[in-house]
Amino acid sequence: MRVLVTGAAGMIGRKLTARLLSERKIGDRPITELDLQDVVPFDAPDGNGIKIATHVSDLAAPGSARALAARRPDVVFHLAGIVSGQAEAEFELGYHVNLDGTRALYEAIREAGNAPRVVYTSSIAVYGGPFPDIIPDEFHTSPLSSYGAQKVMGEALLQDYTRRGFLDGIGLRLPGITVRPGKPNKAASGFFSSIIREPLAGLPAVLPVPRSVVCTHASPRAAVGFLMHAASLDSAAVGPHRNLPLPGAAVTVGDQIEALARVAGSDAVRLIREEHDEAIWAMVKNWPTRFEARRSRELGFKAEDSFDEIIRAYIEDDLNG
Amino acid sequence: MRVLVTGAAGMIGRKLTARLLSERKIGDRPITELDLQDVVPFDAPDGNGIKIATHVSDLAAPGSARALAARRPDVVFHLAGIVSGQAEAEFELGYHVNLDGTRALYEAIREAGNAPRVVYTSSIAVYGGPFPDIIPDEFHTSPLSSYGAQKVMGEALLQDYTRRGFLDGIGLRLPGITVRPGKPNKAASGFFSSIIREPLAGLPAVLPVPRSVVCTHASPRAAVGFLMHAASLDSAAVGPHRNLPLPGAAVTVGDQIEALARVAGSDAVRLIREEHDEAIWAMVKNWPTRFEARRSRELGFKAEDSFDEIIRAYIEDDLNG
Repeated sequence: MRVLVTGAAGMIGRKLTARLLSERKIGDRPITELDLQDVVPFDAPDGNGIKIATHVSDLAAPGSARALAARRPDVVFHLAGIVSGQAEAEFELGYHVNLDGTRALYEAIREAGNAPRVVYTSSIAVYGGPFPDIIPDEFHTSPLSSYGAQKVMGEALLQDYTRRGFLDGIGLRLPGITVRPGKPNKAASGFFSSIIREPLAGLPAVLPVPRSVVCTHASPRAAVGFLMHAASLDSAAVGPHRNLPLPGAAVTVGDQIEALARVAGSDAVRLIREEHDEAIWAMVKNWPTRFEARRSRELGFKAEDSFDEIIRAYIEDDLNG
Repeated sequence: MRVLVTGAAGMIGRKLTARLLSERKIGDRPITELDLQDVVPFDAPDGNGIKIATHVSDLAAPGSARALAARRPDVVFHLAGIVSGQAEAEFELGYHVNLDGTRALYEAIREAGNAPRVVYTSSIAVYGGPFPDIIPDEFHTSPLSSYGAQKVMGEALLQDYTRRGFLDGIGLRLPGITVRPGKPNKAASGFFSSIIREPLAGLPAVLPVPRSVVCTHASPRAAVGFLMHAASLDSAAVGPHRNLPLPGAAVTVGDQIEALARVAGSDAVRLIREEHDEAIWAMVKNWPTRFEARRSRELGFKAEDSFDEIIRAYIEDDLNG
């Protein structure tokens, strides 16, 4: 089978590519060809028998999406997009990439006519508060960010194109992806990762919000697991509602820090300095906390149950154990 | 103040125009100029001192929306769109008119920079079943029609453009609008109106679904009332969630027929022939029934409490009493 990954040079894209090349199949079907797309140049990994083609393109530019869809992939992982902070800072670019790019891809797939499985990375940013204690699967998606609005629109397109038979889509509302490897960034959510990642490297980290803040987390490994599971899921079992909140470990920041102490000792914890940041707190206090994720659990989506597991996944996958 | 109505030649557009010309103000502000737009040619009504300009254009065509927004209206009623049946039959046209036209209008307003109040006619088609007995304000919008998907996208744009300060939007999820004047059409929902309208004209009508079917109805008069109320509503009172389910009379088809008997006598009722239509029933049984409409009621939106009132509104407004 042929597989297309958009946004292949991103953090999840690279991890997904590695997983596809290691498993060499999706469900029972061997992967023979892998198309990797991103807007920035990137190096093709060694396919070790799987034929790899790289494509550097802007999906929203005329003809780009059509060139990819014309290769008639059996499975499309649509990860390409700009993140919430940038979509908020650059209004037009956000709509260009996250809405126009997504729509161009779906339109090109409709034109190609082979109705592949499309796994779309949506986000819990589709939700806007106030929230109940546990957000039910049927809670409204009324976003309070441009990124969230763009993801709502991508979800609506995905569901309609699926209902029409133009593609066979599954949208995944990814929870907080923690621990992100790499350097600290300026995203308001960055501290969820940095309070773990930096102390594990012997570096100081700042906690800008109260320890009582709750967030649902899944590791990058679990996120790739969601994508792989969605790629081979029975379409009929999903039914007409194609966009799914997902499971994860719903923990407080205090729980995160206790897990760090258990995994790495109290010296690591002492590297975290609490320094309240009103601007970050103003955003974080309106973020969704816990999810029911009933349908996705029933459909077999799995994530870590505890934050200890999430830290161990990071150490194994990104710190070479 | 200057007012723009898109879709002004449609049923609601014509009734809204008549109401604007009769009230001659929105809230406390006198209307001085009225721009009426539609894609089909139509006759300008007599403004009687209010300066009227008509515009025949496709909002999604280059420059059309910009020409309207450049006139810097204070209030925009965005009614233009194609109906659910046509959006389902003509996929590309539906996205062109309902998504691209709406986005072009909002973009043109952003460019004009005067941030007018925009009243957007969304629909209960944004909802997809299964449904609880009473649909709460926070129920998810997971549509099962292309029209519904396009309305979800229009709502997301409206909310984001509002949050950004580019316009000041209020989206109204109109319930079933009954009794529609005019001839029977082929919409699956047509019978809700025709079982009242045809017998009142001494003509036979067909009821294709069980009498137990529940739907929330508001008269065209009430729909125009929603639009007028939204045009002058305090933005801060609405808050960040800009798209509202609305009140209406939630009645069974049997209740509708009993109301007809009370208003027009049993001879009228005898003109209704029950003839089950499986195709219509398959659609209607998945439609939303009752709404909480808590926020919109608190904000002062009002509709008829009973179907008797809805029939009387039709007789007064469309049958000259």
